[in-house]
This record gives sequence, structure tokens and C-alpha cells, in this order.
Amino acid sequence: MEENEDSEIIEHHVNEEMEKKGFRTRHTHLFLESVTLSEREGYSTQSSHRLLAYSDALISIIATVMILPVAHTKFHDNEELKESLQQLLTTKIAVYLMTFLIVTVAWAAHIRLFQVIERIDDCLALLNLACMMLITFLPYTFSLMATFPENILGILLFCACVIVIGLIQAVIVVYGFSHPFLLNDQIQISENQGFYKRHILKVILRVPVFCFIAIIFSFIFFPLSYVLLAFVTFLPYISQSLKWCRSKAIGQLEETPDSMLFYSYHPNEPLSKERVEAFSDGVFAIVATLLILDICLIEALQDFGPEFLAYFGSFATVGLLWFVHHSLFLHVTKTTRLMGLLNTFSLAFVGGLPLAYELTHEFPRNSRNELEAIQISCVIIFFAGIFQLAIWVAALFSERETLHPYVRYGGRDHAFMFAKLALYPCVALGTFFVTCALSRFSAPVFHLTQIVVPFAFLLLRLMVRLGVALLRRLFCPAPPPTHHALVEEDPRLPFNDLVT
Amino acid sequence: MEENEDSEIIEHHVNEEMEKKGFRTRHTHLFLESVTLSEREGYSTQSSHRLLAYSDALISIIATVMILPVAHTKFHDNEELKESLQQLLTTKIAVYLMTFLIVTVAWAAHIRLFQVIERIDDCLALLNLACMMLITFLPYTFSLMATFPENILGILLFCACVIVIGLIQAVIVVYGFSHPFLLNDQIQISENQGFYKRHILKVILRVPVFCFIAIIFSFIFFPLSYVLLAFVTFLPYISQSLKWCRSKAIGQLEETPDSMLFYSYHPNEPLSKERVEAFSDGVFAIVATLLILDICLIEALQDFGPEFLAYFGSFATVGLLWFVHHSLFLHVTKTTRLMGLLNTFSLAFVGGLPLAYELTHEFPRNSRNELEAIQISCVIIFFAGIFQLAIWVAALFSERETLHPYVRYGGRDHAFMFAKLALYPCVALGTFFVTCALSRFSAPVFHLTQIVVPFAFLLLRLMVRLGVALLRRLFCPAPPPTHHALVEEDPRLPFNDLVT
Repeated sequence: MEENEDSEIIEHHVNEEMEKKGFRTRHTHLFLESVTLSEREGYSTQSSHRLLAYSDALISIIATVMILPVAHTKFHDNEELKESLQQLLTTKIAVYLMTFLIVTVAWAAHIRLFQVIERIDDCLALLNLACMMLITFLPYTFSLMATFPENILGILLFCACVIVIGLIQAVIVVYGFSHPFLLNDQIQISENQGFYKRHILKVILRVPVFCFIAIIFSFIFFPLSYVLLAFVTFLPYISQSLKWCRSKAIGQLEETPDSMLFYSYHPNEPLSKERVEAFSDGVFAIVATLLILDICLIEALQDFGPEFLAYFGSFATVGLLWFVHHSLFLHVTKTTRLMGLLNTFSLAFVGGLPLAYELTHEFPRNSRNELEAIQISCVIIFFAGIFQLAIWVAALFSERETLHPYVRYGGRDHAFMFAKLALYPCVALGTFFVTCALSRFSAPVFHLTQIVVPFAFLLLRLMVRLGVALLRRLFCPAPPPTHHALVEEDPRLPFNDLVT
Repeated sequence: MEENEDSEIIEHHVNEEMEKKGFRTRHTHLFLESVTLSEREGYSTQSSHRLLAYSDALISIIATVMILPVAHTKFHDNEELKESLQQLLTTKIAVYLMTFLIVTVAWAAHIRLFQVIERIDDCLALLNLACMMLITFLPYTFSLMATFPENILGILLFCACVIVIGLIQAVIVVYGFSHPFLLNDQIQISENQGFYKRHILKVILRVPVFCFIAIIFSFIFFPLSYVLLAFVTFLPYISQSLKWCRSKAIGQLEETPDSMLFYSYHPNEPLSKERVEAFSDGVFAIVATLLILDICLIEALQDFGPEFLAYFGSFATVGLLWFVHHSLFLHVTKTTRLMGLLNTFSLAFVGGLPLAYELTHEFPRNSRNELEAIQISCVIIFFAGIFQLAIWVAALFSERETLHPYVRYGGRDHAFMFAKLALYPCVALGTFFVTCALSRFSAPVFHLTQIVVPFAFLLLRLMVRLGVALLRRLFCPAPPPTHHALVEEDPRLPFNDLVT
């Protein structure tokens, strides 16, 4: 029976491969056609893969390094952490989270754009670099706005950046539609290209127009322009979530038409899985590196000690959160915008880990500050893990489209995946409560957990098997004597791989 | 005639695509076989693509952020730059370059390892993360060694790290060979797997043994252990270059046997092109981001002015160097170890750009310091560009294997590629000499160049056509009347695409 199942899975694999290859052939065919076309006109097109990887790296780094000014806030030992914390929370952490969000909104717009334009030439590559230059400049203008909210210079610079980014994107769209071989295949063969072009331009140019109005208001009554900017940033998400809630409440009144696959802002709008992975890799890599940079920048290089332990523990945490993310996306076949949003939240907390690291080795042993620093670390790790779990839960709602059969309900790795994703939230929650109870041993407990978790991951598959077998014992006390009885069990339970 | 040429090129494309697809099919086939095998034993294998991308991002960031302590050295205005420069040159820049080199040596070892092991499972992923943790720790131990050369703690930590990395790599190799479906296809079907295993283990374990000896020497007479470490780092390169020089001088005495494709340290040993690209992308991305971080960390946020210009200029320089790199590797079909080495040198200078940026906006206008800072920037840009050109020259020596037909001698984009690669070295050299002559206008000249160069890239194709046409006019004054005469011209000249 297992043999059967295996061969089924392999057949499925083969089919998938065949489909992919079929797709690739078609793709290649179209690409060759486009090369022919472009050759005639003297152009040479390129696959945009590396351009997008570079853009993702840039955006992920710029979103993450903004934690540095927060992490390097000096704490004074005689001061209570509570006060510093409140000071931090009110300004710097809020600024960090807002910056992270704004940069990821820009990144989402970038993904949307390059899902329409699939191939590039030299001119588009240079335009994209100009766009990137302004996106990396956004955090600076935003921190200017946050530091001097009453000075209109910040808002002027921010709006000017956004306007120029919008105009460059519009130029890219116009350029793309005037060289149709650069476009997505689906739009290339579509009959209403003109409609697409107008719709996309309308969506893109809406933002610069609002920013222009915000600039005018900033001269008259500047708080209004902040409201306007917040409104613009979240407008599509708010309107779409309202629409979605209404359609769920009343019933499915409207279906998204197939022609509106791009720029629809629907939660099910596809999001390039490769780019979500590349962006996440960038965030994890820079977070892991900021940890060691902190050690290196400490001027007294010889003042080592518990930092080593803290460094290795924190690096292991970042590395294992990446490992969980990797395992999850290995089994994700399609990413939706909702999953992308949850991923962004998870990454925002991962970006906070250098702060947690900084806090845990800042304070003297057994002080109240140290305890609170460790609890903050647990909270950050908990949220980073719980949002990863949320991605999987969101994927399970439309599992036929988004997940590999192995990790669907009843798939052979369903329980294993759940255990992998739940491990960090559980450990963080457990450590939090243990440190509440045994406040004197908080630091040893925390470091011990960080060092034990990697071994837990190594032994996880074994532990899951034992756990599930135990559950079976408890809830189905009489083991069924034949294989047939087992096959007839509820296929939604993840026991299939434990049958034999 | 042009039609003919086009269709030939397209046919070539098609053949290439077919070959690739053939390869892919074979690959898929083997992969499916390995899945079958692994399924039977209860394992699930994964493609290592994302693991390697993450490792590349980590290593490239760690190699590059080490410039930060150098760039943040405080200069005092009343001091002459010469003195600070000498101080910088003697210690910090040397430390930065050495760290960059050591990290890239570790990266090369990582590439070599994962060219042998092509598929991973959870256990290998976790082992690789442990390896990464120690590699990111290397720069810290090295800076400890450089700052306190007489204290043996630095050398002990460094050697301990290298020994553990070596042991983990050995474990990975042993694990890989005991699960043969994880290995490279070529080794998987090879008959002398045992020979491979022994050879690779010998190469890997040589380093920990030398480090162990260095640790013992450090207790007796520590300078000897530094010599030993330098010897170990460059041993394979020195011995191979000696061997190569000898074989070139005497004649081709020895051919590298096909069975020794991996771990041969031969300059023609293949290097994964994808990973060279990923590593380079990481370096360019972090360098571009460090620039804005510098602005953000400046405490007086309102003290803006020439920084904006300097920022946009420097970002444009990094972006365009990436663009040139991208254009080059788009036409590279196979990367060799020699090309990888030249790429590393180029990237080491790219990593120096934040220093150049820091210097150019540090000093008062029209001071002698400013002039020298600008000249240092020109030198850094010149070397970054000239090593990129060297990559192409190295590729041209074995162009049949390494380059796309378009950019070989006589290909239609040969002259264009040369112009793209030569633009930055020429501009940097030109600016250098202009600032020597017109020292009073050095800053305006430098910033003007940085802003003009992007437009030069946009118009480059046109300029190359005009230039080549002009050269034709000068050297072949009588234009041939018919097409046939042209076809009989020396095919090595890059005029083919200008015929009509």
C-alpha cells in the first residue's frame, strides 16, 4: 500500500514536471518570438531575473538596517528600563515599524509592476535603478518627517520622492506597452491591451496626484497632509478589505474577473513566490549580520564574555526562523497577497531581533532590567513565529491552489510541518512564563533554550512520530488489526504516513 | 543577408534551449529517481537553490560591512589627510582587504562543497547553518588578531573557528556520500565514488590539521603561527599557479583528468555562475545601502546640503557598476575560477566605495584634503572597473566555452560590450587627470561626471555605432559598393551589425 502511495506521489511529481516543462516550452517559444521581433528592431531583451533579485536585496536591506538607530540608543544603568522603553516605544520603534511598512509597500508596488513587465532591456534596467535610488532614499525622508514633524521639509522631500517614483513607474509602463514583447505573455496575447494600460496607469498615477495635493496642503495646514499620506498608503488595502468583508457577509456578489488578474489588490491576487523568498532571505541575512557588526563596533574588543553566548544564541534563532520559513515555502506552490502581508509582519519582528540581542547583553546580571529585556526578546520571537504559522493557516484555506499535497490536511507531512511552525511560538511562550516564575534564573533559562532548540529541530521528526503514536494510543485504544481498517479512517487526520 | 544572420542566431538559440531542456530532462529524471530512493528510506530531499542564495547573501554582507569601522574613522580638520591616510593604510584598510579575502576564500570552499552535494535534506540544511554561523564569526576573530597581534587569544579563536568549520564540512561530505542521491549527478553515476570521497576529505581536512599545528606553535613562538596561517590560506592557489606557469613554460605536460573536475584548484575549474552572481548582487546591494545608512546615522539630520548630491552620485556609481556587471554576466555562459578571482578583486574595490563617499563629503570646500579625497575615489572606481574589464579579457581567452557568440571576437555586440566595460575606467582616469590640472574645480568636476555618466550609458549604443562608423571612415576611406565585398571582410572585426 505504501508502495502504491509513493508511486502516486511520484506520478504527481512527474505530471507537475511535465506541466512545468510544457509551460517552459511555450514560454521559450514566445521568448524566441519576442527575440525575433526585437532583433528586427535592433533591440536585445533579457530575462529580468537578476534585476529583480538585486532590487529585492536592496529593498530588504534598506527595510532592515533602519533598526540600527533604534538598537544603538544608549541606556543608562541607573535609569529604569521602563522609562527608556516608553521613550523607545513612543518614537523609535514606531518609526522603525512605519519605515518597514512603507518600504514593503514600495516593494509590493515594484512586484506588481514587474509581474506585468516580464522582460527588460538596457533602458528599463537603468530606469529601474533610478527608481531603486529613490526608494532607498525614502527611509531618510521619513525619519526627517518623524524627527521634525513640524518642519515641512520632511514632507516635501517625501512627497517629491514618491511623485518621482510614480512618474518613473508610469514611464516604465508606457515604455513596456509600446514594446509589447517585453510584457507578460498573458497581456501580450490579450486583445484589450489598451484597457490594461489605462487601468495600470490610473492605479500608478493616483499616488503622485494625492502627494501633489499633500504638498499644497502642507503649506496651508500641515497636519492634514499627514492624514492624506496615511490615507493614500492604505487606501487600496482598506477599500479591498471592506469589499471583501461585505462580499463575505452578503454572499459572493462579485467575482474578480480573470482579466483583472493584475493590479486588483484582491487578497487572492498572486504574488511572485520567488520574490517573496528573495526578499525574506535578504531580511534574514542582514539581521544575522547586524548581530556580529554590533560586536565588531564595540570599541573594547577585548571586553568579551557573555556576548559570545548571546551572539551564538541569537544567530541560531535567526537561522532557525529562516529554516522554518524555508521549509514552509518549499511546500508552497502559489503565494497570495494575504500570505505576503503576513510574511511582512513576521519579517518586521525578525528585524527587531538585533534590538532584542542588544537588550539582553546590555544590563547587569539579575537586575530587573535584564529580566524585562529577556521577556521583550521572547515576545519578539513569539510574534515572528506566530505570523509564520499564520501564513500556513492562510494557505490552508485555499490549499488546492497554494500548497503541495504533502502538507495539506491529511498529507504525510502535515503534522510535521505544524510541529516545525509551532515550535518557536511554543518555546518563546514557555520561556516567557518560566522567566516570570523563576525570575532569578531568567538569563540561564533563556540562553539554555536558545541552545537546545537546534537539537529539538534535529529530533523533531522523531518526536512528531512519537507524539502522534501516543495520541493514537490515547484516543484509539484498540489498535485495528488490519491495514484495511486503517485506510478507511478519516483522511483528514495526518496519520497516513504512520500506518506501517 | 541580415535576415539570414538573424535566423542563424535564433537557430543557435533554439539549439541551446534544446540542449538545456535535454539536460533538464535528464536532470529531472535523475532527481525523480533519487526521490524514489529517498522516499523508500523515509527521507525527503530538496533542491539546494534557496539555501545557497541565503548563504551567498550572508557571506557577501559579512564581507562588505567590515568597511564600516574603516569608514567611521574620525578625521580632524586641522590634521593633514596624508597622516590619516597613512594611518588608515597601514592598519584598517589592510585589515578590511584581508578580511574580505578570507571571507571570500571561505565562500569559495562553500561553493566547491555544494558543487559536489547538489541536493539537501533538513539535516544538511541545519549543518550548513552551523557552518554559516562560524563563517560570520571569522571577521570578528580576525579583527581581534589584527588589533592585538601579540595576544594569542585572537589566533586561538580564529583557529578554533576554522577547525570547527572544517570538521562540519567533513561531516557534510561523509553524510552526502552515505546518501548518494544527494550528490552531483556526475559523481552519482561515477564508479570511483570512494576515490572522490577520499580526495575531497583529504583536501578539506588538510586545513584543520594545519590550524591545529598553528595553535600549538602559538604557545611556543606565535609569529610562526601567523606565517603558517598565511601559508594555508594561499597554499592551493600558489601551488596551482606554479604548476600552471610551469606547464605553460615547458609545454602541456599534464592534462587535468576529467575525473578530477572538482577540488582540483585549477584556474579553469568551473565555478557556479549563479552563485557568483548572487554573491556580487549581495555586495552591490549592501554597498548601496551603507551609503544611505551613513546619512541616517548622522545625528544632525537637518545638516543637509552637498550630501544629497554626493549620495545620489555615489548611488548612481554603485548602480551602474552593478549594471555593467549584469550586462557582462548576461553573456557569460560558464564561469571559471580565474574569472571568480578577478571578480573578487573588483568587488573588494566596490566595497571601498562607502569610504570614498565618506571622504568626499567630509572636508571643507577647496581644501587640499578634498582634492585628495576625490582622487582616492577616482582610484577606487578605476580599479573596480578595470577588474571587471579583466574578467571579460580572461573570458575571451577561452571564448568558445565561456562566452555567448554575440560578444566573442567579431560578434555583433563585441564593440558595445567593450565600450560598456571601458566607460568607467576611462571616466575615472579622465577625472583623475582633470582634477590634477584644475584642482580648484575638482568637486564640481567630480559630481558633474557622476551625474553625466548614466546618460552616457543610455546613449552608449548610439555612440558606439558612430565611433565605429567614424573609425571605418578613417581607416577604410573607400566604402565598398556592394554587400558581397563586405561579407568577405575580416570576420574578427566587430562591424557585422553595422553593415546595413
